[in-house]
Parts: sequence; C-alpha cells; structure tokens
Amino acid sequence: MAEKKKIAIIGSGNWGSAIARIVGANVRTMSMMDEEVKLWVFEEILPDGRKLTEVINTEHENVKYLKGYSLPHNVVAVPDILESAKDADYLVFVLPHQFLRSSCQPLRGKLKQGAVGISLIKGFDLKPEGGIQLISELINSLLGIDVCCLMGANLAHEVAAEKFCETTIGVHTDEQSLIFKDLFQTDFFRVTTVRDAKTVEVCGALKNIVACGAGFVDGLGYGDNTKAAVIRLGLMEMIKFAEYFYAGAKFSTFFESCGIADLVTTCYGGRNRRVSEAVVKSGKSIKQLEAEMLDGQRLQGPETAHEVNALLKAEGLEARFPLFTAIHRICVQEISPSEMIECIRMHPEHLAFDRRRVSIERDVVNQYASCL
Amino acid sequence: MAEKKKIAIIGSGNWGSAIARIVGANVRTMSMMDEEVKLWVFEEILPDGRKLTEVINTEHENVKYLKGYSLPHNVVAVPDILESAKDADYLVFVLPHQFLRSSCQPLRGKLKQGAVGISLIKGFDLKPEGGIQLISELINSLLGIDVCCLMGANLAHEVAAEKFCETTIGVHTDEQSLIFKDLFQTDFFRVTTVRDAKTVEVCGALKNIVACGAGFVDGLGYGDNTKAAVIRLGLMEMIKFAEYFYAGAKFSTFFESCGIADLVTTCYGGRNRRVSEAVVKSGKSIKQLEAEMLDGQRLQGPETAHEVNALLKAEGLEARFPLFTAIHRICVQEISPSEMIECIRMHPEHLAFDRRRVSIERDVVNQYASCL
Repeated sequence: MAEKKKIAIIGSGNWGSAIARIVGANVRTMSMMDEEVKLWVFEEILPDGRKLTEVINTEHENVKYLKGYSLPHNVVAVPDILESAKDADYLVFVLPHQFLRSSCQPLRGKLKQGAVGISLIKGFDLKPEGGIQLISELINSLLGIDVCCLMGANLAHEVAAEKFCETTIGVHTDEQSLIFKDLFQTDFFRVTTVRDAKTVEVCGALKNIVACGAGFVDGLGYGDNTKAAVIRLGLMEMIKFAEYFYAGAKFSTFFESCGIADLVTTCYGGRNRRVSEAVVKSGKSIKQLEAEMLDGQRLQGPETAHEVNALLKAEGLEARFPLFTAIHRICVQEISPSEMIECIRMHPEHLAFDRRRVSIERDVVNQYASCL
Repeated sequence: MAEKKKIAIIGSGNWGSAIARIVGANVRTMSMMDEEVKLWVFEEILPDGRKLTEVINTEHENVKYLKGYSLPHNVVAVPDILESAKDADYLVFVLPHQFLRSSCQPLRGKLKQGAVGISLIKGFDLKPEGGIQLISELINSLLGIDVCCLMGANLAHEVAAEKFCETTIGVHTDEQSLIFKDLFQTDFFRVTTVRDAKTVEVCGALKNIVACGAGFVDGLGYGDNTKAAVIRLGLMEMIKFAEYFYAGAKFSTFFESCGIADLVTTCYGGRNRRVSEAVVKSGKSIKQLEAEMLDGQRLQGPETAHEVNALLKAEGLEARFPLFTAIHRICVQEISPSEMIECIRMHPEHLAFDRRRVSIERDVVNQYASCL
C-alpha cells in the first residue's frame, strides 16, 4: 500500500495559523494524507515563561499570533525547521519574506525527493545582486523544489473566523490542482486553481503599487470615478507587466481572486491606501508615516514600486507604465501627488484608435515618452 | 467637396448636457463635422416663465439640469425632436429609458440614410411581449439604424467638472471607432473603443444586480473580503451571461471601464448599494425604501434582477447564476439577505477541479441545482 503523503507548514504567524486550521481539518478527510501536520514555529518564550510550541501542543491554540481560534489536535508545533520539513511531500511557505533565506538554509539538500512547495507570501524578492524575482523562484533556487502559490482577497482573522471568501491557487500540473484544492478548500474558503502560477504571484506583488495610487487619489479628494480609472489603469499595467516579463501569462488569471478581487480590497482598505492617503493630507514622507502609523514597519507598495521602477528603467519601459512610474516618483518625493493624473492623462491604453491596437507597441511607447 | 457630417444629442438631462459640452467642443476641431450640434430639449417653462430652450440658447447653460456649467455656443437647443434629428448623421441617445419609445415615434422613417446612433442609456429594455433586449436593439427596431454605445465609470457632474475618468465605446466597425473616439475623447474623458458593443451594454445593465448584492453584504457587516468575493462572483456571472446570450462576447471587454471599473464604483458607491444596505439594516422592503430614500424613483438593480431571473428561469439556468438568483429572491422577499452567502457557497465557479473545466457545463449545473 502506498505511503501516505505528509504536509508541513513553514511559518506560524496569524496567516500560517489560520491556514493550519484549514489544512489540519482537511487532511483528516483525505485518505492519501498522513493526519499529522507539522507546523514550524519559531520558538518564543511567552510572558508566563512557557514555550510557544508547548502551549500550542497542549492547548491547541497559537495564543500569541492567532488568539481565540483553536488549532486541530493533529497540527503539531515543531521548533526545529528541518525536523518539521524533512519528511514532507508538501511544504506551505507562510513566513515573513525577510526570514526566508535564513530559515531555508538548514533545509538545503535535505528535503524529500519530489517535495512540492506552495508559497503564501506576497511580494517580489529583491535579489542581492539586484533585480527582482518571484518568491517561488527564490524558494526554488534555494531548495530545488517546484513551487505553487496561494493568493487572494484574504485576511487571516477573517479566514480564522470562517468568513466566506475566495482564493486562487496557481499550479504547474493537474496533479497539483487536485491535491491543493483538496488541502485548502473548505465551505467558507473557496478555491479556484489556475495553471498560471507566476501570474498569480505577480498579482499579489503589484497590487500594492496600485493601492498607493488609490490612496493618493483619496487624499486628493478626486472622487469615485477618478479612483476607478486609476485602479483600472493600474490593473492594465499589471497585465502589461506580466505580458512583458512572464511569458505565457494568461489574461484570465487577472479575473481571479488574486487579481481583481485582491486589487479592489487593497485599494479600498489596507495599509498602503491608508498611508498613501495620509501622505497627501499631512504632507509628510512615507518614512515619517511608517513610524507614526505602522510602528515603524515598512510599507510594501513603495518598495515594490521602487523595485519595479528599477526594472522598467533598465528596460527603457517607464513610458509604457506611466502609473507605476508616477507612483514611484511620488513615493520618493520626486514629484508631488497632485501630478499623478497629469502623468496618466495620455496613458498608452487610450492612444491607439481602438483596443486591438493597444498591444506591445514599442514604437508608440517611444513616441509618447515625452509625457514623462 | 463632401458634405459635413452632423451630430445631434437626443436628451438634455445632466448627462446629456455634460456630453454636449464635450461634443460641442470636439466638433469644432473636426473638419469633417458641421459645428452645429442640435440638442433635443423636452421643453419646460421655468419658474421665471421663460422657456428652457430659450435660456439654453441665450445664456448657454442648462440652468435646470446642469447648473453652473456653460454649454458651447454651437450647441443649439431644439424643442422638436424631429427637427433636431432629421439631418443628423450621428445621434446620441441619452434620455431616460422610459421615454424612448414615445420620443422615437416621430423619428420613424424620417432619419437620414446611413445615420448611426450611440446609446448612453444603461439597462435592459423590457419588451411589451415579455423578455429583455438591449437598449441598442430597441432603438434599432424602432428606427432601423445601427447603434453603438458609450458606458463607463462616469458621473455627469464629475464629467462636467472635467474630472479625469475613462469610458468605453462599443462599436461595430472601425469607422465608428475612429469617429466616436474623436467626438467623445477629451484630455479628461479618456475613451477606449471596443468592437464588442453588446457586451459593453450588458455590463452597464447587469452591474446594478451585483451592486445590490454588495449592499446586502455591507448591511450584514460581513467584511471587505466577503464583499470582494461577492463582487467577483457577480462579475463571473456577468461574463457567463454574456457568454450564454450574446454570441461573440469578448472576455477582455469586462476589463474595460464599462466592466470592472463601473462595477466597482457601483458596488462601493451609488444608490443600489445604499438602498440594499438599508434593506438589511432597516428590515424594510425595497418599495418602502424607494419612497423614503429616492423620492419614489425606482431602483434599477431589483428590476434588472427580476427581468434577468425571468430569462434564466425560462432557460433552466438559475443554478448556473446562483448570485443573480439569490439577489432577485432577496429583492422580492422570498428569502432573507442572510441567506445570500449560503446560495453561493457551492458556486459553479469553484466546483470543477480547475479553471479550465469551468465552462458551460450544463450537466454540472444540474447536479448542483439542489443548492437552490
């Protein structure tokens, strides 16, 4: 009889713990899966002197990062990352981006043959030598495994509270479709899988740039329809970015939860919108507002805008992405927020006489480069 | 030398007047166009005893419907509809839907050979014999002319105030693309034309159903990501509706302003969302709230939901459109708003194991018909 498959969750913050609730329950209904779900927990000593892993394993609750929600008893907290991952067929990466390289070091060359990863981490990775890559590409380069991704309009606490929402899983094979759908879908967490994993990740990274643009519009008091235009042009630039840099990207993936749904919630809620609005209303810099509003945590949108701008500049493509470019220039205070609309007034989206002519037209782009 | 072309605007409410500002200015830059733009104005006597058409033609302002914004002097108010339209090569239909049949009667058989219409009227038309049709189809059946359409995330007063926004023009020919783009685009009113006119109109009609769903979610206090899921599933049903009933509909048209942008603004602002939210919070019926909140005007969303439901029922397709169906049933108080999420928990969108299998699968639909 075939050996059962094992899944491990690498990361136990609020999102990792919310996902553990789901995966822990689902594996119990899947005869091909081992019921034990190892959860890698970065060990901490709680105020009462107890170890976090011990509390999780006795009280079945992540009292530090997801208080008030029980973890299935088959979810086992493990303080050693290699111990948690070495027998896993499926690895869920859901730890903060900045800890990925260091955390993955002990795993190099030690994972099971044929193990597959799935990343829940949104954003691009900035390569030490410069340039950006997807988180899945980073994990693949560190660990040599195939990596899928899960991204959508999801908030850890809402998912823990079993509020109805959707998510998108980007895969490379049909087998991954089947297995990940069964591992993650519940009656409140509705999954669509797509054979376009890179685009799913690109959506999760780029939406934060657009959210900054939406925040600037809100701060300037421009009205709903101007905001809708900015969000839509942002989406068109996300699509164009995928078209340019990720061959085979599917248009339809942008209709999934990872695309329009996550973009919309991020542009109407979320910290990138909120801080960007405050940039306009207060006149303060992003840095000052990060200190005041986010306890010093860094805002993703401006960083992604910066990394994307470096890439576009290198490729001579800033004119094709006037919104991304304008948002970056506002974030670094090169131009003021009130100049954003001017930068997109002659957006390439509207320059051809009709939709069919708005393709990768580098000549048209060069003609209008003077609008920057 | 070729005769110049003429354009007439049929309707002079706030949207017709805002459009007249744009068209009136643009024709002056187009050597093929006659500078005079006739504006059909349903004559009214103002409180000071003067005729509305006379005030418009002397003071160049529609003091009743678009106060504070000047009309170009080449826009001429005409109280007789046949007089305004008989020499026109292009007719802009922008009057309230309920007056279309009666207003068009005098024009039957009297329009210029080869005249082309463009409808700015959102919504379906309910045929007297039952069933729905597009407004463009109604105009075509009444007047025998080809009809394009213009729809997007636009508000008359914002456009009059020259606030940056986008719109979509749906056409049938390249020539229409070129001419309508030139007639309507300005540096604040950014136009994309698409060779998919029916889908553009379908978007404008169906979005109001989804907006009611968004309002119910807001009233129930379900959170941003549940709302995003409802909006996205609504969009997926809009696409599926176009796929079923309008052969040749293009997926990409839903990415235009008429699609996602107008849907999003309508779901975050607008009367359909607002009244639907109040349905949940107050427990009152739509009819009561129309009286209280809209001065007795009728809300479009519930009407469209009803007309669409009749069509879906007749085709045995309610199970394929669980959100549209649930929204209709809530509007007619067959079920309560709190049941909406239950109706979409097993949405066909998520039933196939991956995206490629979510096509027009009538068998799958029948299997899950029990969820209604």
